[in-house]
Amino acid sequence: MSERFDLIVVGAGSGGLSAAQHAARLGARVALFEPDPLGGTCVNRGCVPKKAMWFAAQIADMHQLGQEIGFDSGPLRLDWARFRNLRDQYIAGIRDRYAKRLDLAGIHVIDESVRLVSNDTVVTPKGTQASAPHIVIATGARPNRLDIPGFELGIVSDQIFELDAPPQRIAVVGGGYVAVEFGCVLRGLGCQVDLLVREKLLTGFDLELVEALAVQMQAHGIRIVRNTRIKSARGQLGKVTLEALDGAEHGVYDAVLWALGRVPNSGNLGLEELGVECDERGHVLVDAYQNTNVSGIYAVGDVTDRRALTPVAVAAGRALADRLIGGHAGARFDDSVIPSVVFSEPPLGAVGLTEQQAHARYGNAVNVHTGRYTPLLWMVAGRSEQSVVKVVTVGEERKVVGIHVLGPGSDELLQGFAVAMQKGLYWRDLKAAIAIHPTAAEELLLLH
Amino acid sequence: MSERFDLIVVGAGSGGLSAAQHAARLGARVALFEPDPLGGTCVNRGCVPKKAMWFAAQIADMHQLGQEIGFDSGPLRLDWARFRNLRDQYIAGIRDRYAKRLDLAGIHVIDESVRLVSNDTVVTPKGTQASAPHIVIATGARPNRLDIPGFELGIVSDQIFELDAPPQRIAVVGGGYVAVEFGCVLRGLGCQVDLLVREKLLTGFDLELVEALAVQMQAHGIRIVRNTRIKSARGQLGKVTLEALDGAEHGVYDAVLWALGRVPNSGNLGLEELGVECDERGHVLVDAYQNTNVSGIYAVGDVTDRRALTPVAVAAGRALADRLIGGHAGARFDDSVIPSVVFSEPPLGAVGLTEQQAHARYGNAVNVHTGRYTPLLWMVAGRSEQSVVKVVTVGEERKVVGIHVLGPGSDELLQGFAVAMQKGLYWRDLKAAIAIHPTAAEELLLLH
Repeated sequence: MSERFDLIVVGAGSGGLSAAQHAARLGARVALFEPDPLGGTCVNRGCVPKKAMWFAAQIADMHQLGQEIGFDSGPLRLDWARFRNLRDQYIAGIRDRYAKRLDLAGIHVIDESVRLVSNDTVVTPKGTQASAPHIVIATGARPNRLDIPGFELGIVSDQIFELDAPPQRIAVVGGGYVAVEFGCVLRGLGCQVDLLVREKLLTGFDLELVEALAVQMQAHGIRIVRNTRIKSARGQLGKVTLEALDGAEHGVYDAVLWALGRVPNSGNLGLEELGVECDERGHVLVDAYQNTNVSGIYAVGDVTDRRALTPVAVAAGRALADRLIGGHAGARFDDSVIPSVVFSEPPLGAVGLTEQQAHARYGNAVNVHTGRYTPLLWMVAGRSEQSVVKVVTVGEERKVVGIHVLGPGSDELLQGFAVAMQKGLYWRDLKAAIAIHPTAAEELLLLH
Repeated sequence: MSERFDLIVVGAGSGGLSAAQHAARLGARVALFEPDPLGGTCVNRGCVPKKAMWFAAQIADMHQLGQEIGFDSGPLRLDWARFRNLRDQYIAGIRDRYAKRLDLAGIHVIDESVRLVSNDTVVTPKGTQASAPHIVIATGARPNRLDIPGFELGIVSDQIFELDAPPQRIAVVGGGYVAVEFGCVLRGLGCQVDLLVREKLLTGFDLELVEALAVQMQAHGIRIVRNTRIKSARGQLGKVTLEALDGAEHGVYDAVLWALGRVPNSGNLGLEELGVECDERGHVLVDAYQNTNVSGIYAVGDVTDRRALTPVAVAAGRALADRLIGGHAGARFDDSVIPSVVFSEPPLGAVGLTEQQAHARYGNAVNVHTGRYTPLLWMVAGRSEQSVVKVVTVGEERKVVGIHVLGPGSDELLQGFAVAMQKGLYWRDLKAAIAIHPTAAEELLLLH
């Protein structure tokens, strides 16, 4: 016999936890299935440990800058094992708090995987069965693995967090944000880094800022090789040579990080049998309300074809609970303005359209305002690298449709401007605003 | 005979430079009088060198945090003379660029002080005379000096930038932002700091956040003594004891920094003789258009009774030039939303009303949303200090009338939210916005 719930959530990552907890707050009886640690990618293998490593790299970078402005101190070495241990403890603490919160909320957490056997019933391998009028798929995504010779000689991003010592020489294969972030972090922590990019770097971000970032990454000692397609790896663990399609060889490396995109965890759930539509890469297709094409089955987060960002998953889960349980028939989240930050060194932030996207959509109606400046402390240190800020506007009214920022502080300064954009931001608003001096953020007000 | 101009600007700080340059861009023939280095307080003795020192202290703080998370490195010592030299070079570079820009703009720069002899004529000590239909007073302000015994045994903020070595033990006398900023910076750079506060700390900022900052300053080793009124100093340079009204003695100190507020440079300009009204502390009184009570005489920046912030002076100067030269009769800057940041450790940012001010103005219509969290890296390091974010709203619509932030990142995250506030920000806007995870900025969206 099957236990009845108001809502079944499959997966306890950012999206699943959001849907489950909000539904429970609204009075629903919720079952949450998760065979792996609570928190999903973000907490365990993504944003959180990545940001901790980014901070560590920032400390090393600041130390370097310190030496340039008059601090005397020897080289900085990170005890990776100790740092990993502290980071793991922190993450374990987050999971503990999640577990307590779920328990307090009366959510039934079952640490098993499930298959959907109908649009209202799931079954676990051990035979546990549960039913609900609504089933939310929130199983996330995982690093992509290639079927090429020697792939097993490298690691994927999940495993980078398990390293107890830094590789001396590492190849990062890929050009997306995961590749760029780890390339920068590992370089900051003293590794020699080759970034082997299939085609372009950071597709989807503003070309000018991406190029400016590439220049700075190279100035920091990262070797970037573009338009190179790795066809195989050979050697042994800890001593790997990579072979590209064009015959070039790269290495020898202590370690190889494959950062080749992510694939949705939509298999083995019974979705195909139930006729749930996915795209060719396996993303569950959802409408603006997180509905799949099958009534009673919904999806949120990285398993869907929407932006793979924690806050998007959280907003989707919350809105879905509002609609299914809270009775707000029209509830959906506003995805018109989604800011994001690449935690590179320096960080790169973007919200809205790039210059290229705006031109494609609005043609001659586009105005672009770009500023370059060397941050204060870099100037003092005698560095000449430049931060770049760009505002893309459309029409005579100069409505802001895109903001792009590269440089120290970009990680924190963007959020508020994104809020302003969501309200309808115009060039005149930026010109009328009073600056905070001296900051990176004010540069967006000082553009011409 | 007197040379004729369209505009005379007295003082080449942030406000004067802004008015002069914008007027020249609009075609005016401009005379700019400044006996001291170009750039005024901000560039030479304020924001810029202060921020450079804040960054240096940040590097030291990050180094300390690094040791807590697994970096092995000895203690960090700053070579003050070298750092000062680099900082001074940077500032000299700014002044050079100003000089070139003024020259390019065709502005007549006269390195003399002036007196106004009428509402359209100024005279220098050497007898140079200039006339214009509009005279802008932009002479700024200077550190307050007390007429108490032994005052000369201490220094004011202008002089802190001249130190070639750190004091080992310093008393900072004052409780405003200058006192707090230098107290934190000096502590970060290894000095023993006593902060001797007359009454309250950071009057005008939100009480709860100020208290949270005080706790963190004390945790960093700053001794804060409130409600103490220093009546005299005795001893000798480098060995100073302070005596309070209540009989308590503090010290012995290597150095004393008097940070007792600032006084406007409105004297010796001939303003009194012309009947230009000032408040009891000497601030030139201006209306929303920067008009004094005397026709043809205007004032911008710290010499006025408006907020003493560089961006306010810049906006005022620009709007005034727009009005007087550009022919925009209604030009004035919008001062309804003025964000500001105290560069303490951690930084404190504020825009709009404090909780206390909102209650005084709107009574029961006020809602306050406060969040406390320990930043990610501090958690990893095992620290328990908390950042605090607060949003103050009014009415059923929950219009945001104040945002207050304390913690790492507060310096950069506030600007965009201030822009949003200027457009009319509501609680629902914050709840509808998509976060950037993990950042300090997103905490403003996660409030309940």
